[in-house]
Order: sequence, then structure tokens, then C-alpha cells
Amino acid sequence: MTSKRLTHAVDEPSSLSRRRLLKGAAIGGSGLLFGKAIAAQTSDQPQPTRSTDTTQSIPFYGEHQAGITTPAQRHVYFMVLKLDNTDRQAVIKLFKEWTRQAALLTQGKNIGPYSNNHFIPPADTGEADSLHAYNLSLTFGVSPSFLEKLGLQDKAPAEFKPLPHFPRDQLQAQYTGGDICIQSCADDPQVAFHAIRQLVRHARTSMVSMLWAQNGFNAYNDVSQTPRNLFAFKDGTANALTLKDAEKYIWVDDKNWLQGGSYMVVRRIQMHLETWDRTSYGEQENTFGRDKLSGAPMGQQHEFEPIDTGLKESNGDPVMPVDSHVHLAHRTGQQLLRRSYSYTGGINTLTSQYDAGLLFISFQKSPQQFITIQNAFGKIDKMNEYITHVGSGLFACFPGVKEGDYLGQALLEG
Amino acid sequence: MTSKRLTHAVDEPSSLSRRRLLKGAAIGGSGLLFGKAIAAQTSDQPQPTRSTDTTQSIPFYGEHQAGITTPAQRHVYFMVLKLDNTDRQAVIKLFKEWTRQAALLTQGKNIGPYSNNHFIPPADTGEADSLHAYNLSLTFGVSPSFLEKLGLQDKAPAEFKPLPHFPRDQLQAQYTGGDICIQSCADDPQVAFHAIRQLVRHARTSMVSMLWAQNGFNAYNDVSQTPRNLFAFKDGTANALTLKDAEKYIWVDDKNWLQGGSYMVVRRIQMHLETWDRTSYGEQENTFGRDKLSGAPMGQQHEFEPIDTGLKESNGDPVMPVDSHVHLAHRTGQQLLRRSYSYTGGINTLTSQYDAGLLFISFQKSPQQFITIQNAFGKIDKMNEYITHVGSGLFACFPGVKEGDYLGQALLEG
Repeated sequence: MTSKRLTHAVDEPSSLSRRRLLKGAAIGGSGLLFGKAIAAQTSDQPQPTRSTDTTQSIPFYGEHQAGITTPAQRHVYFMVLKLDNTDRQAVIKLFKEWTRQAALLTQGKNIGPYSNNHFIPPADTGEADSLHAYNLSLTFGVSPSFLEKLGLQDKAPAEFKPLPHFPRDQLQAQYTGGDICIQSCADDPQVAFHAIRQLVRHARTSMVSMLWAQNGFNAYNDVSQTPRNLFAFKDGTANALTLKDAEKYIWVDDKNWLQGGSYMVVRRIQMHLETWDRTSYGEQENTFGRDKLSGAPMGQQHEFEPIDTGLKESNGDPVMPVDSHVHLAHRTGQQLLRRSYSYTGGINTLTSQYDAGLLFISFQKSPQQFITIQNAFGKIDKMNEYITHVGSGLFACFPGVKEGDYLGQALLEG
Repeated sequence: MTSKRLTHAVDEPSSLSRRRLLKGAAIGGSGLLFGKAIAAQTSDQPQPTRSTDTTQSIPFYGEHQAGITTPAQRHVYFMVLKLDNTDRQAVIKLFKEWTRQAALLTQGKNIGPYSNNHFIPPADTGEADSLHAYNLSLTFGVSPSFLEKLGLQDKAPAEFKPLPHFPRDQLQAQYTGGDICIQSCADDPQVAFHAIRQLVRHARTSMVSMLWAQNGFNAYNDVSQTPRNLFAFKDGTANALTLKDAEKYIWVDDKNWLQGGSYMVVRRIQMHLETWDRTSYGEQENTFGRDKLSGAPMGQQHEFEPIDTGLKESNGDPVMPVDSHVHLAHRTGQQLLRRSYSYTGGINTLTSQYDAGLLFISFQKSPQQFITIQNAFGKIDKMNEYITHVGSGLFACFPGVKEGDYLGQALLEG
């Protein structure tokens, strides 16, 4: 529990300017290391280009679904549904309709025109009228129970089964379960919500019920920044490496209905901000294993420098604590694509604390990548003191849709 | 319950393009009226200029608090606090510190520098590090109970007392009460949340507890648009008129501690989206009394044309239903400044419906403006079928702060 780092070399400690602090962070830190020359590799690896042009739209059709390797937009509305009708033909009809709607919505269009007949409800709920496409992406996934309900359990890959119980899980019924998920991401929250509302609106009458949903956000000024989570640490730095080899880490290559798809893990993680905010700066960095300002792995200077868990202080202690989040994850050798969003709901009436945290979303070729890392955190991850996993789901996100085909076709017809 | 408008003249009914729909709406509608020539006054009165430059900051000091007549930013985090310490000197100390912090935060700065001592928690929680100011405004208000707790009830203007019970109110304890509110608005949700988090962080140890909070958003492409609420109607059209005479409608002019301040009413309004979405287009427009696409008052063509409740159809029926929301509000002759935000939380586990709606916020010179309008809605407002007021508060928002002074000084020292 002691801080490994006694001082923090911010060059301009009297400055309150956030922009200057950043500059300070980029310069500072060089006095921290004893056992290690400054790494030769200092090239930053920026995130893939985000569009800041909110008039732009992301193609719906393609080899893979959008919303996975797509750079994370600023807002998410994430929906988990229960399938109420197990007739496969009815489900096919629904997925065809969802395909039609998603292709329109992602292009900034409504799902249908307004009729001249004013005695009927409008075809589209309309709250996105006069709004651009805002880089909307819609990503559909199904859980193992979806396959079971449709009698398709024989098609489930061996690894496609509910996530195991992890140490310290405190899952709540209201944030677990479900058969279908839809991840709606856009650079505007109303556009993201509008899309889900259309998709669910008619399906609700007989096909699905809404189980849980979560909105969230990512904050960044421009395309080159990694967003900070509510603990103020950059979240997603390692994605640059994962994306470099998406075939190896992200896309399923199984010659089955999931070929070209990806497994999505979602975890609703309550972050105990009040506890965190009483924690020392040094202990915060020891918890993550990264420099708070720059995002550099401890022992390095720049955000995108490689993690080196072997670095030692002069007294022989590891520079990056062995129970830090990054150390434990890195040691597994596993990589996954993080695509998380922060949330800030209201106040918990029982605790008078923030209902706030992270909607953790990761994509991986196999659920085992996540399972291995989460088990490595186990009971020793320093982060455990500050977070509680309260929601969970594992979904198989279909491959992309070819124009004329529909979502999940290979599963439902294969 | 019958629709007053049988057809809807969208020029391009087969078009799904949201941008084209808007164009259609501006042209359409001319075939609807029988008893009225097209109004001569068609000049649009756009909203005051919003800044889309997120690097900009809004001055904290001034005659009035920012966040009232300031054009509504895209995001809000609204916090209601309970005052736990009734020692006036301690409260003065808190409000001085809040003044200091708010002046920094609104300028895109942290509330304090990071120390070289890593054994202590960081002065600022830091999640806005590397983010611009995003036009942050912080608006502080206190309730009648705040004055009582401090033995200042003699200073309460006669009209400053808890709002009366309104017909159909279904207020929930978790969204009512409280002594202090802070409205944090910014063009980025993390910046808005960060500001509240700093203000509350140290105050929580002995001065205040968090009672309830709500995040929300407004969506628009550019500065000239009035945002649509989740019923897809434009919300805030009448503000242009109210802002034209802010001295008459918004700012308190009482030669007391509230001189130059304003009364804020906040209502957490659950919107029953599922019911609304099953309602006919005509009935939706009859409920509001406005054209859904253009926002024009029924009987007019353009959003900012004046409301005329006297217009008649050829059969003698009023063009704008007498039980429509706009008709009932307009008839009172009262005006207030609406500054509302939509919210989309999760799913209500009891009803399996959206926890979504409007964080209604209005500013007015006297609470009576709101009370008169809300009582006029009474039990006859068509809107009642689709909404439920579940939260409520009345706060006196202090006048602006002069550099060197502090928030609420005239109240606390007067």
C-alpha cells in the first residue's frame, strides 16, 4: 500500500492550466528511473483516425460489423434484450428488418417516411430529425442463450458459453442475462439513442423485451487523444497494438457462422470515485501501473512506449508494481480491444455516492482472452479496492453484412 | 382524442433523408388552414448564438450568473445537495471556496496544481486533464430550506417557498428536497461532471451530502437550431421572446440579496416513450399545439411565428386545440426561460420501459410564472397522458459575482 514513487516531476507545479499540465507531463518523469536508460523507442502510436466531422457516416455493410475496430465515437447507448419469441422464421424476419433499419439509420436517415395519414403513429419517432449521421455505428450480438432458445445450441463454438464467475464479482440480476445486445455509438447521444429506439420499437410488441441499457461517453479534444476514464487515467492505450494485428486478436476465424465476427465482453463496472479521490497520487499510479498524466507505462516516458515489467528501481523493487492492473494484464500475454465508455448516472440513494463508472466493452477473437486477463486480476489486482463489477455479458457479434444479406444469416439459415 | 389535422403536407413523403424532411417541412403545411391568411410576420427569430468552438470559455464573473441566459450547451450534470452544517461562517468559507473553484473550472483549469508529494491525493481529480473548457458554466442556487437552516428565513422573499402540489404530480422522495443546487453545463459531458465532482469532493466531508443528480443532453447540428426533445418536438422556441426582455421575465429586481438573480424551477419529467410512440402523428401535434417538423405553432408556417390561439378551422374549431400544451401555457400570458435537457438512463426493472425524459429547467423572475403555467396545465393538458413529474425543486439562483466577492455574499453577510 506504500507509494513506489515519492515525487512526481511535473515541470510547472504552480500552473493550473490543464493544457500546460499536459506539456509538463510530457517533459517530466525523466528523473524517476534508476535501473533503466530511457527507452530508444519513443514513437507514439496514435489511435486510428477519428472523424470529427459529425456530418460523416460510417458504412453499414462490409466484411466486419462497424463499431468494433471503428474508432470509438463520443457516445454510446448500449441495449440488452430478451428474446420472447423462439420461432426461427419470426427471428429471421426481425433480423432482416433490423438490417434494413440499421442500413438507413447509420446513413443519417429515418427508418421510414412520414405518412400523409395523420391517424397513424409516425414511422420514425423523429428525435433525430434535423441531426446529421454523427458517425453512428450499430453492432449486433447474441448470447449463448439466444442459440439455445432457437434450438441452435449445436452451432455454439465450444468457447461460446456464459462467462465464469470471477473473484470479487458482485453481479446484479438487473445488469446480467439477455439474449441480444445492440451497441449504438455516435458522436451525438440523441442520435445513438434514436437508433436503438427505432430498432426496439416494433420488435417490442412480440419479439423482445428490454432488459437493461446503459448510456456512456468518451471525452477527447481531437482525434489523436486516448480518452481518460473517471479515474483520470487514459483508457485504451494498448489498442494501437491490438489493432495492428486485428486478425490475430479480434476477428473470429472459425469457418462457421461467426467467421469475421468477434466476441464482445461487456461489464458494468461501478467505480468508487469517493474512495479513489482519497487515494494518494502515488498509489493511484501504482494501481494502474501507468503515469497518470502521460499514460506512459511506469518506467517509460511516453504513452505508447512498450510495457517493460522487468524494470527495477535501485533497491531492486520492480518499477511497475507486480499487483498493478497493467502488470497483471500484461503478464498474461493476452491482448484485447477495449472500447469502453464512462457513465455518470444519478446518486445511489443507499450510499449517497455517485452511480458512476465504466461500461467496459472489449472485443476479442476468443472469450478466453478476456477470461485469462480477468482471472489474472483475481484477488490481487490493486484496482479491486476501487471498482465493483455489477453487470456482465458475453455476446457473439456477427460478421459484417453484405448488401442483400441480413444480420446473423449464416447462423439462422446455416 | 381525434386528430384535428387529417393530412400532413410533407413535400417528399417518400424521402427518408432527415435533411430533406426538414426542407419539406418548411415548404409544407400551407394547405392546412382555412380561416386564416398566411401570417405576414414570417421572420424567424433564431436562438442566441451558441459557440461551437469548444476551446472557448464563458466568463464566470459578471452581473448575472452564467448558465441562465447563456445559450444551452450540449450537456448538463445537475446536482442537488443537502446542507449538513448550519454554521454560517463555515458556509461562507465553503461558498468562497466554490467561487474560487468555479472561476478556475469555467476557464478550463484545474482547481489546484498537482503536488510533488505523491503521498497525498491529487488536488484535482484530473479527468478533465487535456480537455478544453467546452463552454462550461456553473450556476448555483439555494432553496427555502437553505435559508431556514441558517436562520435566514426572514430574508426569504414572500414568493420564495416550496412549490405547491400540482395536479398529477407523482413526486418521488429521491428526486425532491435539498438545500443547494449546482447546474453544470458544458459542450462535453466529462467536463460538466468533472466540475461538479471537484466542487462536491471536499465539501462532502463535513458540509454537504449528495441527494440527487441527473445528467442530460441537448442535440443540434449548429447554432441556429432549437433542440428536439425525446418526443421529437422542438423545445425552447419561445425563449427567443423571453430573452428579448430578460429584465421583465428572468432577472429578479427586488433590491435584496437576489437582485440580479433568478428563480430556477427544476422538474424531473419521466416521458412515457412507449405510449407516445403508439400515438398518431396528428394527436402528437395536437398535444403540443405545434407542427412536429418545423416547430411552428399550429396555424402558422414557421417556428418563430407568433402563437395565435384564435385561429379557427372552417368548421369553427380552433386550429390549435384548447387542451394543447402550447395553448394552455400561452393563455396564461406568462413567459419563462426554458433550459431543459433530455435524459436517457437505463431500463426501469419494474416496467421494462425506458427511464428517459426531460430534466425541465426554467428560469423566471418569480416562481409564480411557473406556478401559473403549471396550474393552467392542471388535469386537462393533453400532455398529461405521456409524462409524469417525478422530481421537483425551486432554487433561488444568486446574482452574478464581482471579482473579489463570492457566491451568495449578499445573503450570507447582508
